[in-house]
Amino acid sequence: MATVATTQFADRLAEAVERKRSQLVVGLDPRPDLLPVELRGEAQEGREGAARACGRFCRGLVDAVAPYVVAVKPQVAFFEALGADGIAALEDACSYARAAGLQVIADGKRGDIGSTARAYAAAFIEGDAPLADALTVNPYLGRDSLEPYFAACRRDGAGIFCVVKTSNPGSADVQDLVLSDGRPVWQQVAELVAEWGAELVGEHGLSSVGAVVGATHPRAVGEARRLMPQAVLLLPGVGAQGATPADVARAFTSGPASALVNVSRDVIYAFRVAGVDWRSAAAAEASRYARDVWAVSGW
Amino acid sequence: MATVATTQFADRLAEAVERKRSQLVVGLDPRPDLLPVELRGEAQEGREGAARACGRFCRGLVDAVAPYVVAVKPQVAFFEALGADGIAALEDACSYARAAGLQVIADGKRGDIGSTARAYAAAFIEGDAPLADALTVNPYLGRDSLEPYFAACRRDGAGIFCVVKTSNPGSADVQDLVLSDGRPVWQQVAELVAEWGAELVGEHGLSSVGAVVGATHPRAVGEARRLMPQAVLLLPGVGAQGATPADVARAFTSGPASALVNVSRDVIYAFRVAGVDWRSAAAAEASRYARDVWAVSGW
Repeated sequence: MATVATTQFADRLAEAVERKRSQLVVGLDPRPDLLPVELRGEAQEGREGAARACGRFCRGLVDAVAPYVVAVKPQVAFFEALGADGIAALEDACSYARAAGLQVIADGKRGDIGSTARAYAAAFIEGDAPLADALTVNPYLGRDSLEPYFAACRRDGAGIFCVVKTSNPGSADVQDLVLSDGRPVWQQVAELVAEWGAELVGEHGLSSVGAVVGATHPRAVGEARRLMPQAVLLLPGVGAQGATPADVARAFTSGPASALVNVSRDVIYAFRVAGVDWRSAAAAEASRYARDVWAVSGW
Repeated sequence: MATVATTQFADRLAEAVERKRSQLVVGLDPRPDLLPVELRGEAQEGREGAARACGRFCRGLVDAVAPYVVAVKPQVAFFEALGADGIAALEDACSYARAAGLQVIADGKRGDIGSTARAYAAAFIEGDAPLADALTVNPYLGRDSLEPYFAACRRDGAGIFCVVKTSNPGSADVQDLVLSDGRPVWQQVAELVAEWGAELVGEHGLSSVGAVVGATHPRAVGEARRLMPQAVLLLPGVGAQGATPADVARAFTSGPASALVNVSRDVIYAFRVAGVDWRSAAAAEASRYARDVWAVSGW
């Protein structure tokens, strides 16, 4: 185990999961065209207004879901689509969530080499006051492209979630290509992730190098659990994309915090279906998902 | 061929290459710690100052290299590392370069699914006044994750460069895994890229769906050319990473604009070696690389 100055990410996560009895992560995917009525006017005042409205939406969501979730997962793309103002809103949302005691997983799926990878690590998870606690990353460029993130895990108590098997139908195009030994590419990537994360296993037996596995592939979730016994699995795809909490039950066999279920649209835009106050709707759905996931996790 | 309202990206590129007799792209990788002395003071005034200094550096570089290059390739990570101020500097650098008649290739290596991919397309290459002409993307998530970019190519004359085989040693970890038919993963990705780009071939016989292939693997460059005959190959790795213009000669067999050579550090930080004015040093190196590449291209 590496010596780190601060608590390791996986340990912070494990403590939060056990304290809150929740493995839920809520995705912050602010879209100006879908905001609640009370924010709609501001959202139409150009990019700056839209970014401000998205920022207020994120703060409101953090307040609403904080009791029920261990982390929020801002999707960087939605902020980038609003330019520099959007990034200011992202910075605000992240620091607000961290101040509320939540882990922040920046969903950027970054992947690049050398000094560029170091710049992404600096942008997201490095130093004394990082933007986020963890970052999602892409494995296609190989181990050395991820080394700067591993360094941030060792030194700054950061975490990463490496994309292994995604929830979309097109994930088959590359991830399911069959290797000479008969396994699909994603299973070899899973083994690499397990290997890369071995040096970053914390006191709860979980590594700060986690993996993204789509909940829409229940059999892959089980196989991923077997191939990466110490990785925290981040499972998107529950809710709007069709998977249910029951589909991910087998992800939790390595401990209560060994998997996190991310729900985005079903929580943050719940008001569009329920027709009630957006904060209350988000809180109600987060509470319901947290309870359902905890129940299937068997802890 | 798809009907598009504006000129296709591949055609704009082909015209610029033939007009300028250059296949050179200069990478804009501004790093506050490496800036010229005259910008160093400002660069030390917090993130805002650093972003301002980087913005001035990029503008100066655009002025210096514009006669010799067809495109600049801002590396998004270096701007993101400076937060919202950095993104404002990126926006400024991109619009300044486009006003100077250069194509702008945003090097973001983005890759995500569904509405997230649509948000990245909107952030970078969509609409009437996009940030950039083209974006680098990651193929690991499959075809449907790239569909929003293809739509921007069709509708807005945008381009993409899909990462196929990268220049770093670690590229072997996933890209060189051997498939059941004996080929490495990256060659299958190359075939997918050729297939995806077939509908976006312009009047010069080149597709607006290009590919990133590291110049540090000369044999792979030749093989990539064969597998993707109509793709514009974007070749990083020349200069500081060790490849020479001669290593990429075989990339140009599909036409003068069928490959672009990117040089970053060797041009933009040339002043650190040459000890002359940074603009003059960048101009001199860009001129030299453009001439050398044109010579080996055989056109």
